[in-house]
Amino acid sequence: MLFCIVQIYMNKEIISDSYSILFKQNGFDKLSNHLKNENYSKIFIHVDNNTKQYCLDVFLNKIQIENYELIESCNGEENKNIESCLKLWKIISDKQGDRNSLIINLGGGVVSDMGGFIASTYKRGISYINIPTTLLSMVDASVGGKTGIDFGTLKNQIGTFYDPKMVVIDNEFLNTLEKNEISSGYAEIFKHSLIYDLPTYNLLISNDTPFYDLKTIYNSIITKNKIVLIDKKEQKERKSLNYGHTLGHAIESYFLNSENKLLHGEAVSIGIVLASFLSYKLFNFSIDHVNSIKKHINCIYKKIEISQSQIGSIIDLLIHDKKNSHGKINFILLKEIAEPVYDIQVKKELIKESFKYYLS
Amino acid sequence: MLFCIVQIYMNKEIISDSYSILFKQNGFDKLSNHLKNENYSKIFIHVDNNTKQYCLDVFLNKIQIENYELIESCNGEENKNIESCLKLWKIISDKQGDRNSLIINLGGGVVSDMGGFIASTYKRGISYINIPTTLLSMVDASVGGKTGIDFGTLKNQIGTFYDPKMVVIDNEFLNTLEKNEISSGYAEIFKHSLIYDLPTYNLLISNDTPFYDLKTIYNSIITKNKIVLIDKKEQKERKSLNYGHTLGHAIESYFLNSENKLLHGEAVSIGIVLASFLSYKLFNFSIDHVNSIKKHINCIYKKIEISQSQIGSIIDLLIHDKKNSHGKINFILLKEIAEPVYDIQVKKELIKESFKYYLS
Repeated sequence: MLFCIVQIYMNKEIISDSYSILFKQNGFDKLSNHLKNENYSKIFIHVDNNTKQYCLDVFLNKIQIENYELIESCNGEENKNIESCLKLWKIISDKQGDRNSLIINLGGGVVSDMGGFIASTYKRGISYINIPTTLLSMVDASVGGKTGIDFGTLKNQIGTFYDPKMVVIDNEFLNTLEKNEISSGYAEIFKHSLIYDLPTYNLLISNDTPFYDLKTIYNSIITKNKIVLIDKKEQKERKSLNYGHTLGHAIESYFLNSENKLLHGEAVSIGIVLASFLSYKLFNFSIDHVNSIKKHINCIYKKIEISQSQIGSIIDLLIHDKKNSHGKINFILLKEIAEPVYDIQVKKELIKESFKYYLS
Repeated sequence: MLFCIVQIYMNKEIISDSYSILFKQNGFDKLSNHLKNENYSKIFIHVDNNTKQYCLDVFLNKIQIENYELIESCNGEENKNIESCLKLWKIISDKQGDRNSLIINLGGGVVSDMGGFIASTYKRGISYINIPTTLLSMVDASVGGKTGIDFGTLKNQIGTFYDPKMVVIDNEFLNTLEKNEISSGYAEIFKHSLIYDLPTYNLLISNDTPFYDLKTIYNSIITKNKIVLIDKKEQKERKSLNYGHTLGHAIESYFLNSENKLLHGEAVSIGIVLASFLSYKLFNFSIDHVNSIKKHINCIYKKIEISQSQIGSIIDLLIHDKKNSHGKINFILLKEIAEPVYDIQVKKELIKESFKYYLS
């Protein structure tokens, strides 16, 4: 039965703007063909220290590739910055990467966001392909054409919209992940269900652990891709993908250089609880849903203590969220499960109240 | 009569991909309307130390603008680098520039190339407008959607394709320029005529000084824009705009940090002589044309002495030219005036011979 489901999904192909999202060996076979047909002048495989150790050999065994150059960045959000880009641009330049070169990003969101940014700006844009190895990057970072790096404490402040040539998803890579990495990615799966997929939401909320089989991953990508295709440049509908991220990003930024450093999904999970509470306050979103969501999140993620002064600093960081304009802070909220509303302004006092609810 | 010609051209509008190139007060009036209608959250006027002194007041007198923030970079190609970008990103970020902000680049190619790159990458892309103040940026840098910065000695190694919202050309700014700045821009006008515009070529070659009235500027932009519209991403026809630039860029890079620093057009003018000689050798391009071109260039530009070892180093730099792929050095050459050919590989020995011809 499990084998059957895997078979069904491994032959599926999700079509995005100018590229496809492919699954498992079928995807790797198409990648091998692509490499053979495109005659790239040089192929750079971009890894971090983790994926070099745990994923590179697995990947190389699944594809046919004749020559490549390995380029390596340091893992962790704190290395998703311009200094890392300068090092990689220099290596690619020294190894005579030209306009017809390719970067294959083998890793999590840091590798694909930064590798995509490097590709989009090297000689005004070269090709890249994403092979996500974390749950987070499978369902979120590697799909949708957003690239970026952090700037100071501001997440993804510098970046581009630039599509990959192909994305290949293989959940075998998830076996190499620690439990908190799985939970981090799960936050995006849960978010996708909340904003657009009631059946999946009902399935997920009934568990007290992260549920992420291949079918769930597939559905999560379908949801994200559908929204991206409607509104790529995030003028309207795509904003809904930022559910839980307005405060989630600020929380992540705030703790980035502290001992309490949070993974992206851990911060977003708090943001989801806060946004759900605000939805209750402003759009009459059912308090029962809010309580279930909080309970579900608290089963999966460690509760974080946040002091009053920290809450103040986090709210100050909001002003830099990319979703904001004209100095106003815009939230995505829910009227119902799978009924998001965006561009909602929320008063500081109410934001503070939502933290109080999360901490209670 | 002169007044009539200016009148004709000031009301013209050149339509590019997603934006217009406008002229003189008509352009500034449309810019004022645009600023009024678009309701930008913040407008940044990007100047360098020269344009702040000589062009800013002139510009502000021509448009209607309520509020703006001035951002300043240091003039000169040696400042078109990532360090300058970091400073400007930080200022824009500190001043709470958001996705709905605008950058107006008031300056030459360094200001528009770098300002365009900053706009294309800040929060994954904000709007920008170019007001070129040098002849070079009027006929070249500010039109065509190429943005970029230098990386080490490599020109425009990091950049994007990203269109401005509007370009306004006013040759009044040229009155503030030194003679060598005019000659530098003239190299691109002369190049445009060589590759696509025989009547203008015949007009220019008959003078022994740079000829650059508003009509010539207009025709030069028409030529560039026509080629850009056919092949924006420089896969084929747009390569012809690099006539004289393969060796020109390498010469410019080589002398960038030396006492003999050359302006872009000065380096390109040498590249034009070299490419014309190679065209004679490989495509039977008339030697009479080559001699006329060399004579014309030598009337306008100071002859540069280049030693044998310097020639070797310049040829080594060629390998990094963005036009190259698979380690081959590709030239644009001419079969006739206005009949360019591209992707032509030339042997080192012949390149050396072309330098000998230039130096003779």
